[in-house]
Amino acid sequence: MNFRAVLYILGWILNIEGAFMLLPFIVALIYGESSGFSFLIVGIISMIIGLIIVLRKPKNMTFFAREGFAVTALSWIVLSIFGCIPFIINGDIPVFTDALFETASGFTTTGASILNNVEALSHASLFWRSFTHWLGGMGVLVFLLALVPMTGGSHMNIMKAESPGPSVDKLLPKVRQTAFVLYAIYFGLTALELIFLIAGKMPVFDAITTAVGTAGTGGFGIKSDSMASYSPYIQWVVGVFMMLFGINFTFYFLLIIKKFRQAFALEEVRKYILLIIAATAIIIISIMRSGAFIEMPFTDKLRHAFFQVSSIITTTGFSTVDYDYPNWPLIANIVIVALMFIGACAGSTGGGIKVSRVSILFKTVKKELTLFFHPKRVVLIKFDRKPVAHETIRTTNVFIMAYIFVFVASVFLVSIDNFDFTTSFTSVAATLNNIGPGLSNAGPTESFAAFSHFSKYVMIFDMIAGRLELYPMLILLTPEFWKSVFSPNRGIRVYK
Amino acid sequence: MNFRAVLYILGWILNIEGAFMLLPFIVALIYGESSGFSFLIVGIISMIIGLIIVLRKPKNMTFFAREGFAVTALSWIVLSIFGCIPFIINGDIPVFTDALFETASGFTTTGASILNNVEALSHASLFWRSFTHWLGGMGVLVFLLALVPMTGGSHMNIMKAESPGPSVDKLLPKVRQTAFVLYAIYFGLTALELIFLIAGKMPVFDAITTAVGTAGTGGFGIKSDSMASYSPYIQWVVGVFMMLFGINFTFYFLLIIKKFRQAFALEEVRKYILLIIAATAIIIISIMRSGAFIEMPFTDKLRHAFFQVSSIITTTGFSTVDYDYPNWPLIANIVIVALMFIGACAGSTGGGIKVSRVSILFKTVKKELTLFFHPKRVVLIKFDRKPVAHETIRTTNVFIMAYIFVFVASVFLVSIDNFDFTTSFTSVAATLNNIGPGLSNAGPTESFAAFSHFSKYVMIFDMIAGRLELYPMLILLTPEFWKSVFSPNRGIRVYK
Repeated sequence: MNFRAVLYILGWILNIEGAFMLLPFIVALIYGESSGFSFLIVGIISMIIGLIIVLRKPKNMTFFAREGFAVTALSWIVLSIFGCIPFIINGDIPVFTDALFETASGFTTTGASILNNVEALSHASLFWRSFTHWLGGMGVLVFLLALVPMTGGSHMNIMKAESPGPSVDKLLPKVRQTAFVLYAIYFGLTALELIFLIAGKMPVFDAITTAVGTAGTGGFGIKSDSMASYSPYIQWVVGVFMMLFGINFTFYFLLIIKKFRQAFALEEVRKYILLIIAATAIIIISIMRSGAFIEMPFTDKLRHAFFQVSSIITTTGFSTVDYDYPNWPLIANIVIVALMFIGACAGSTGGGIKVSRVSILFKTVKKELTLFFHPKRVVLIKFDRKPVAHETIRTTNVFIMAYIFVFVASVFLVSIDNFDFTTSFTSVAATLNNIGPGLSNAGPTESFAAFSHFSKYVMIFDMIAGRLELYPMLILLTPEFWKSVFSPNRGIRVYK
Repeated sequence: MNFRAVLYILGWILNIEGAFMLLPFIVALIYGESSGFSFLIVGIISMIIGLIIVLRKPKNMTFFAREGFAVTALSWIVLSIFGCIPFIINGDIPVFTDALFETASGFTTTGASILNNVEALSHASLFWRSFTHWLGGMGVLVFLLALVPMTGGSHMNIMKAESPGPSVDKLLPKVRQTAFVLYAIYFGLTALELIFLIAGKMPVFDAITTAVGTAGTGGFGIKSDSMASYSPYIQWVVGVFMMLFGINFTFYFLLIIKKFRQAFALEEVRKYILLIIAATAIIIISIMRSGAFIEMPFTDKLRHAFFQVSSIITTTGFSTVDYDYPNWPLIANIVIVALMFIGACAGSTGGGIKVSRVSILFKTVKKELTLFFHPKRVVLIKFDRKPVAHETIRTTNVFIMAYIFVFVASVFLVSIDNFDFTTSFTSVAATLNNIGPGLSNAGPTESFAAFSHFSKYVMIFDMIAGRLELYPMLILLTPEFWKSVFSPNRGIRVYK
């Protein structure tokens, strides 16, 4: 493993994080809060450490898949550790485990909180908490690739490791150009949402934190009731923008280069929209059948149903109502749990397994059934009207199995806390899929405060593993990785 | 599709079922119960219909995979429908849906019951209920293959469709010999358990029903508290025999032909035993840590923990205690739910996904992680020290995906009943994996009576689909199957 190159990237990560910590410091200056100094101090220290590391660029910047995975996993761990220190210093979240949980939850765009009263936080902390969503949403390493010119390595392996989905669309010939375009779209859409929110008379601070939280499909709210107390207009804006940020960014790129037909033909986007419509319809019907909502006007039912569906499928985690059973009928909750796992489109800021993967898996089962009737027929699995490479199908299958193993192992470990089945199951589902709230004791009106430190570390692992689509974190658990740590020069060039 | 051949087999199935219905009639004669006549009448009618069908043997007895699947699915549906009629006639289970649920639950060796007071049933009905476990355990079609000489077709396709596991071990060159040996081992082990139970002073009727229920890994008890009121000796005997019936029958065959070393080297059997030991240990530790069992002697904890582990991993479903949360800590319940899905060995009478499949899937994930470090290395997935065929890995992966889709769809449909999440999730887990009791409202001290008719039909589908490992039931849902029903001669010889 090329550890010099890995360390070099980590140095840049610290520089970027340190620089961005000046933002909450500025917020604190505006509101006259002393809590902002913690961000200033930690930001400066991060940058000093970072600059010392990047001072000497290693000659060999070769990144194979394993270096790509290792650097990504370590970057996110470093980001979370340094990012949580200001919370501890300024006293907003005094316990290290909790501060780390909250920060990892932020960067991974999970939005699961250990805070029982979020409104007690300083503006600087609230801002940083939401802003980590924005940084984590598109990816910090992608940001780095867009910003810093790097020569001499296949940096696609870094981008692949951080970007969600079964395969990464290289929009433009160079990695740096692709990364730049992605961030441009991301920034543009965030700004657009901000304009819509401010037009709806949302306070500017609320609008900024909500916009960055939506963009990263994060879900940290700055109010205890998430989005419940905002106007229907604002709820509609946030609902629609969550949906937009869950769309494969290739769609927007195609729109920009005016390939409209190709854009609207994207299979994943079409299925994603269909899923949202179907899930919203099922939830509306189910809450209409249950007596509790008989007085509620249809437009309100539609708004709440659409908002929650959009929030969960994009793995954001904002809420406008307490949908936890028995407030909403169980079937609505089952739809929500299913959407948690399905997740958004590949190449979006959302988490979960991704619509394209689920679709490919569904097609493999259909193919198998067809083969019983036509054993000699050659059945190809197609996606976007093109045959899917055998390798993609194989890795998708293996990915799902790894997902299940991580999920089951996590539920097992979290169950030591002896909460009920629903809580243990959905708290892991909500963290591994980067949603935020689960059901029951981990429901939308509850927090993760009551879990043990051990469970919180399990969920921190799950949040990062989920955001990075497992492998970067899983290789940290292999003996091979640790062997390469202790004999770092072994095998660097052997597999070139 | 060769429907003449399929119908011919169905005729034989009716003959066999009709003949076996004389057994509960004899039981009724012994106990002087009038309820036995319902079995006599239905048995005779079944045999008349069956004999009319088998009178003329079709010339073309070719069975491709699709015929194997179709005949298996239809056989099990026919078995369940005819098998439930006596319950309706004698009034023990007057409602058709309930009688069908109970009978399908019996044949599929699930053991999920809609009866709130099983002790109110006649001896004849109790016997038939338990005896369906024995018939379904090894497979009715396997019984047919052992009994009736059939020429001119590849009947391996029938055996494959009914026998559980990723691949069927052909113990002997001919299908009929293999089927015969399997039934001989099955009968021998059942008789052995019966002797042990009677030696422990269990009443003969109880001993017979318990032995056949254990052998098929079924789990219908004849007492409302399942096995709780029997002596520790009897509980140990049942616990150990459940474990024995969950072992791949190839193991016993190897013992019989004195290949001891080969027998004890079987990877699946070793892992299965290790799983039982590990799960028992975790449960003992977890109930020791929870205050509620502080007074209970260690041997009792060991007995209850081992019994429940053996019962669930073999998908039997007997119980000696109410292990439902919060009686037992949640981690014990999570272990139980995990074992439900893992299931027993392939080639045993148990259900679930099977230890060998889970093991192969685990190895595919491990292989993937190794490849990141050694991308050029050829990593083979081995089982029993032999490389696993690519085709087996592929079909195992697809099988799991089909499993997940059926599971999720079923939970969704059952959730319309609006029970809590745990009930809906575990009731489907317990029926699809052929266990019997789930947790919460479907727990070991509850029944399935409260579910709607619709949910019961979903679970009937799941029980049969689970017993036949999905495909036979899934192809009944494909348009291809219905096309071939309406143009039956299409494509019979095309794919020869």
